[in-house]
Amino acid sequence: MTDFRFARRSQIIGKSVYDHAPGVILLSVGSAYPGTLPNLTAEADEAAGQFVAQSMQYGPLMGLDDLRDSVVSYLAEDGVVCSRDNVLITNGAKHATDLVARTFLEPGDRMIVSAPTYMTTLQSLRTHGANFLAIPQDDEGMRTDILERRLETLAANGEQQPKLLFDVPDFHNPTGITMSLKRREKLIELAERFDFVIIEDDPYRRIRFEGESIPSLKSLDRSGVVVMVGTVSKILAPGIRIGWAIGEHEIVRRMAMQKSDGGSCPFTQRIVTSVMQSGKLIEHIGVVRDRMRLHRDAMIEALAEHLPDAKVRRPEGGYFLWAELPEGVSGDALAAKAVEHGVEVGSGRLCFPEDDPGNFLRFSYSLVEPDTIREGARRLGSAYRDMAHAA
Amino acid sequence: MTDFRFARRSQIIGKSVYDHAPGVILLSVGSAYPGTLPNLTAEADEAAGQFVAQSMQYGPLMGLDDLRDSVVSYLAEDGVVCSRDNVLITNGAKHATDLVARTFLEPGDRMIVSAPTYMTTLQSLRTHGANFLAIPQDDEGMRTDILERRLETLAANGEQQPKLLFDVPDFHNPTGITMSLKRREKLIELAERFDFVIIEDDPYRRIRFEGESIPSLKSLDRSGVVVMVGTVSKILAPGIRIGWAIGEHEIVRRMAMQKSDGGSCPFTQRIVTSVMQSGKLIEHIGVVRDRMRLHRDAMIEALAEHLPDAKVRRPEGGYFLWAELPEGVSGDALAAKAVEHGVEVGSGRLCFPEDDPGNFLRFSYSLVEPDTIREGARRLGSAYRDMAHAA
Repeated sequence: MTDFRFARRSQIIGKSVYDHAPGVILLSVGSAYPGTLPNLTAEADEAAGQFVAQSMQYGPLMGLDDLRDSVVSYLAEDGVVCSRDNVLITNGAKHATDLVARTFLEPGDRMIVSAPTYMTTLQSLRTHGANFLAIPQDDEGMRTDILERRLETLAANGEQQPKLLFDVPDFHNPTGITMSLKRREKLIELAERFDFVIIEDDPYRRIRFEGESIPSLKSLDRSGVVVMVGTVSKILAPGIRIGWAIGEHEIVRRMAMQKSDGGSCPFTQRIVTSVMQSGKLIEHIGVVRDRMRLHRDAMIEALAEHLPDAKVRRPEGGYFLWAELPEGVSGDALAAKAVEHGVEVGSGRLCFPEDDPGNFLRFSYSLVEPDTIREGARRLGSAYRDMAHAA
Repeated sequence: MTDFRFARRSQIIGKSVYDHAPGVILLSVGSAYPGTLPNLTAEADEAAGQFVAQSMQYGPLMGLDDLRDSVVSYLAEDGVVCSRDNVLITNGAKHATDLVARTFLEPGDRMIVSAPTYMTTLQSLRTHGANFLAIPQDDEGMRTDILERRLETLAANGEQQPKLLFDVPDFHNPTGITMSLKRREKLIELAERFDFVIIEDDPYRRIRFEGESIPSLKSLDRSGVVVMVGTVSKILAPGIRIGWAIGEHEIVRRMAMQKSDGGSCPFTQRIVTSVMQSGKLIEHIGVVRDRMRLHRDAMIEALAEHLPDAKVRRPEGGYFLWAELPEGVSGDALAAKAVEHGVEVGSGRLCFPEDDPGNFLRFSYSLVEPDTIREGARRLGSAYRDMAHAA
């Protein structure tokens, strides 16, 4: 075998979220709960039959017009005013984020992210050579005061300003934090003033268990600085691989040209169109939301019982939980020990663009039943005691 | 609206193959003939019903094991010996090529391509900053003697050697040429000697109308220097968006990590698995092949009648035709004039990585009926006479 001359970016190999030890309880992945996977046989039949000429042929790079119109209506219910020209259909939200990065970033360009942030997107952004400007969070979301000072310092020193910002304002992955209205307004003001584009990652917004919804960044955007990315993965089914990006036409058009796969699948686009048009999507969102609320409650209670030393933040929606371990307790070590005890949780390390504090864990409660969540937490608790005992 | 700071690569905006003047006959795009689009309602029903837990959930980055095994069997019939570990499922062949490029190329790296070559891949490779080493072709395919001399000169001068080679050995897009066995063997020898990886683009191999099949590069590869990329787009349906890459495990594993979309759709993967396992794919290939032979014959005859000044190469298979116009006749000008006359053909210009000779046209005969092909050729003939008259 030849000694292959790989590119530097191909050395960036994270652990695949699909590799798991057999027999362990997964409290680590944001997969769909199998009990709420939708039955789409009628829509699939229609797409493969009545719509065969469209669904089996090459589709337009921007996506099917019918689906783009359905996305416009879906977002209008949530206060986002846009037209078909602002909608690009993608293979999910992560794909949309990657296309924004391909459209704006040169290797070495600065990009703002929260610390911590969504680990898989972080990994994908690294392949574009992004130079991260990491901004901490508190209960109101990204610390825009700190961001402002950092940007002012860059300006004063004549240094290159960031081109992009990535954040998850609703039920942040991994922390579960929802950004306050004031911070959202400030973020847009900063984007306008310092000339960067905001990627608003919105997979979970409709999965709100309680409390009042806060306007999305895109609905507050008057100058075109926000690209909102969404997906049906968390509200319908991850296997469909359909998402979207909403932004200025000039941006989404260029993003389309960065697609490397001939455009998203028209067959699954047709299925999603039907599900949106019939109202089945809205109905399904209610089912998923009610189910995820049960899971969150079970997880919060079980962690309080079995891992009382951890500070756990209670999210008002979404799929994820974030826990701070006592100082000096290693998230990496506990995650490794947990697998020995039959449960997989995420170490917080992968979520930090730079300096990992070392003592965080990421959980997802989406995939398994409340009873299994409780059993997983019990196993985690025994791993924790095991580790404390050894130390 | 902000004056957006786009990346250089986002300036590379070709004409989308999906934008067409209304009412024109398309002799320009390799879309499927609507009359042979498959009825996949049974397979879709099975995927959405019986296999719901797999098809609606996140799938493995490498692709479904069942599909990877089916691809192994499909390729074994054609002399390619590989195992599941060598198979990566992608969103079509172009996507697979892009992933190879992401895995190997740094901006500015050299890459070998034939001149002319597949225009859409050329455009995608440009976004990676590839520095093309363009090698001419003759009736036996890429001129490996010229390539060898170029590589030897680079070596003698201590210059960087190319990392990749991209070619379409069977029914080359756009020329229709099939590479001889001698050239294939020489190409592999050069890859081994000069340490580059060959991307063998194989969308059309099974669409052979006549003559003996020549072993694929991958079936001749003993040292792992070939990555073969394939797709169901030209043998089943473009709308399914499923393809594959076959290569050393270390290569395809790194390619998987370059995916930006969470992996290919498990729902359509399940459908393709069924179509492969049942033998329906092989049956369908026969139907498409017989239909495309009729189209090629109609196109060759019609061009001989209506554009007798052009030298047209008769391909033994595939979807494309290449025509040389008399010296001094502009392919760009004729393609533009043709639209006025109600037919769209491709100017050869987009297929050349560098110096375009200027007098070539690319045709595809796949999409429209033989009668429509004849009418399109008639319109092209009148555009040609119109242009000659004006000159």
